[in-house]
Formats: sequence, C-alpha cells, structure tokens
Amino acid sequence: MDKLLIVKLGGKILEQQELLDQFIDFYAAYPHPKILIHGGGKQATAYAEKLGVETKMVEGRRITDKPMLDVALMTYAGLLNKSLVAQINARGEKAIGVTGADANLIVSDKRPPGAVDYGFVGDIRSVQAETFKTLLDAGLPPVVCALTHDQKGQMLNTNADAVANAIAQGLQANYTVELWLCMDLPGVLENIEKPESLLAEISPKRYAELKSAGKIHQGMIPKLDTAFASLDAGVDTVYISNVEALLNPNHPKTRIVQA
Amino acid sequence: MDKLLIVKLGGKILEQQELLDQFIDFYAAYPHPKILIHGGGKQATAYAEKLGVETKMVEGRRITDKPMLDVALMTYAGLLNKSLVAQINARGEKAIGVTGADANLIVSDKRPPGAVDYGFVGDIRSVQAETFKTLLDAGLPPVVCALTHDQKGQMLNTNADAVANAIAQGLQANYTVELWLCMDLPGVLENIEKPESLLAEISPKRYAELKSAGKIHQGMIPKLDTAFASLDAGVDTVYISNVEALLNPNHPKTRIVQA
Repeated sequence: MDKLLIVKLGGKILEQQELLDQFIDFYAAYPHPKILIHGGGKQATAYAEKLGVETKMVEGRRITDKPMLDVALMTYAGLLNKSLVAQINARGEKAIGVTGADANLIVSDKRPPGAVDYGFVGDIRSVQAETFKTLLDAGLPPVVCALTHDQKGQMLNTNADAVANAIAQGLQANYTVELWLCMDLPGVLENIEKPESLLAEISPKRYAELKSAGKIHQGMIPKLDTAFASLDAGVDTVYISNVEALLNPNHPKTRIVQA
Repeated sequence: MDKLLIVKLGGKILEQQELLDQFIDFYAAYPHPKILIHGGGKQATAYAEKLGVETKMVEGRRITDKPMLDVALMTYAGLLNKSLVAQINARGEKAIGVTGADANLIVSDKRPPGAVDYGFVGDIRSVQAETFKTLLDAGLPPVVCALTHDQKGQMLNTNADAVANAIAQGLQANYTVELWLCMDLPGVLENIEKPESLLAEISPKRYAELKSAGKIHQGMIPKLDTAFASLDAGVDTVYISNVEALLNPNHPKTRIVQA
C-alpha cells in the first residue's frame, strides 16, 4: 500500500513564521500522498476580541455560539487555510484547502446540549474516504481546517485532533497511514513541568497506570484516547510531538503503541 | 462537447435568502458540469467597518491594503464561500469551495502601481483548465471566490467578473460554455433609470455606438469588455442579467452577441 502522511498542526506554529517555513519546505517536498489538518484557536480568539465577540470556554473547550462560528469560519477557513495553501503552492505544489463541508468530505452531528451546551460544535459521523482518495490521486493534497457540516446546511466547529484522527481512520484501508499530532509540547510528559520526563512511547497499559496516578495532563487525555482509537482502527503509526520532531528524526517524540 | 454552466453571482443576492434559496435549488439540481463564482464586496465592507479597517475606493474600485486583503480572505473565502458550499451540499451535491490559490487554479500578477496603487489586487495570468476539468470530472463542482494568488505565497484580490470570464475562456476548448454574469440590474440598460430600456442583445457595433453616446453606465464598461473578450475567445454564450433571468427562461436579460 502507498504511504500517506497526515499531519495535524496545532499550537503556536501558525504564528512562528521561521518554524512554519521549515515545516512548509518539508511538507511541500514530501513525495508521498499527504493531508494537512489545522485549527487556529489562538487567531480566532484574537479576531473575536477585535470584533467584540466574547470567547466563552468551559473546561478548556470553546463554546461556539453563532458569532463565534462566524469568527471560526473567517479565521480557519479564510485567513489561515488560504495562507497555508498559498505558501505550500508557492513551492510548486497543488494543495487544495477545504473544510469538511467541501465535497461533503466530513459530516458531523451537532453535539446535543448536555450539562454544557457547546453550541455549533460537531462530532464526526463519517469521512468520505473515496473523495479524499480522488483528490490525493489527482495530486491535489487537501489542507483541511477543523470545520465540518451536518449536510443540512449548517457548518460546525470540530476539534482538529478529532478531524485528523477521523481522516486517518477513514483512509487506513487504502494507505499505510503515518499520523502526526503536532503541538507545542514535545510529546507526552510524565511531569508537564519537566521536558526530560517525555515518554518515547506509551501503550494503553502505561496510559492507564499514569492516568490513575494523575500523571496525564488534562488536555492530553482526549488526544491520547483518539490516538489509541486510531491504532485500534488500523492506522499504522501515530506520534504525538512538536513539529521539530517531524522535521528531525532524531528529535524526541512520543509514539503511541498498542502494547 | 459537454455543456458547462458558469454563473457569477454578484450584487445583493447573498443577502436575499429567499432568492438565494431559489438559486441554490436550481443550481444543485442542474445536471451538467457547473462552476459558481462569487465575490462579496458588501459583506467585506460591513466586516471591515466592524474591524475598524477603512474601506478605500477609487472610481468604484476597492483599494486592497493588507488589512483589507485579510478582510476579503475572511469574508469571501471563509464566511461566504463555506456558507454557499454548505447550502449547495445540503441538496446532495459535492461542491468544493476554492480560491485561485487552491490547487493553483488561478494565478495572477499583482497590478503594478500606476496613477492609482490598488494594493493587493491581481490581474489574471493563467487558469489551470486541466485541474478544473479534474474536479468537474470527479463530480466536485467548484465554488470559486474572487481571490487568486501570485504563486509566490501572496493572495490577491481579483474582480469576480474577471475570474468568471477567465475560467470561461480557459474551459471553452473542453466544453460548450454558457456564462451568466448575474447582478442586481436586469441587464444592459440604455437608461439606467428605466428597466424597460433593457437591451435583449448587444453587439460590439451597438456597444460602440451606445458608449460614444454616453449611454453605457460606467460600471458596465469593464463587464461588457470582458464579456466580448470571452465570446471572441470561443465562449459559446454570455448573458448579463439578474439571477431571476437564470431561473426563468422568459425573464428579460441581455445576451452578448458577436454581430
């Protein structure tokens, strides 16, 4: 099977032009099929402020009311997605920027209000693997921003890690998938204050032990849960790391392993 | 040759939900290859105001400085493009929203500053007909917003009529192209105050006569110039009209004719 690289870019990299340039050089030159996923929470917050839209967070998760959904559409799908596409294609590529609404690529269900009403937030229902494959086969690598739709006309804000994992799971039958979930931290740490506590790999058993010992940082739990789900679903390789580790094979990173 | 419908949506229709719904019903059901082009100048102006970005116009043309380019990216490529795509795909289609930067579809040159420096405005250099054809053949009709790129990483604001005409000209060798340049007015009028002065057709000779008699409205001149250029380049049919005329064959409209 052909190799497929899936990279989720998160954290401050979209504001670090020098590192971003290095990443884009690497990404544009990468010779196999590839898909890039990005969010842009920080930029959305900044534009929301300029527009007088209040940012509401519950337990580190953004509440997406209508004005905030518009801000997400403007910053993720407009400003950031097209900036990434233009920079990649300046290197001779033919990347195509999309949301989950485009070509019906990713359909999600609006999360039903429970203890918290997250607003216009979508939980992914399906990924159109065939259409992703059509774009990849045509040499048009998708740059996906973390927005989906309900196929009834409503755009929905969706977690970028969830998007990356859903795409990886959707395409594992067609490709040997290597998934990189990149963030600011260098990987999974036993102690978030100590970079030297980075785990080179983590298995479900080790994860359970560390979690019950209270040693897994709160924000890392959904990331690890979906990463393990991707391995279970047949995704070949999953890393949690910073972008530097993707660019330099000798850089420390965390590999998610099945046992 | 297969038929290709190209529609440029302009004017207030993006704010007229009832008419827009009728258009989207028609467009989603249209059974041949199709491409939709849109701008969104009014929405950009409104968001620019909210963001405190000054709208500068010279002779009815927008000056696109860096803050205004960001506003165009946010409103055209983010908000409006994805709203149109989600509404079309709610009808079972697989439309894909793009700018000229995506898949390198439309490359333009930044207009050199002359008497007026229009800023980040692009004049179209080339259209990738093969890539448009790839998307159309895959059943992914493009929804194109009026932004292009210079292939060196810079996005450029581009007139939506120019984008529509360039696509029509680029694809005329592969398809029998029917191009509709839709706006608020019902077509080309001899007297802009009198809807009954609508011309059912206009030839280059008639255009020259009316222009020298001062009877062609200023804003119509670039639209007619590019429409005639499209016919000369081999585009089969060009109409200038409102959207109602596209939906109803008996509605008055102006057809651009070669003689």
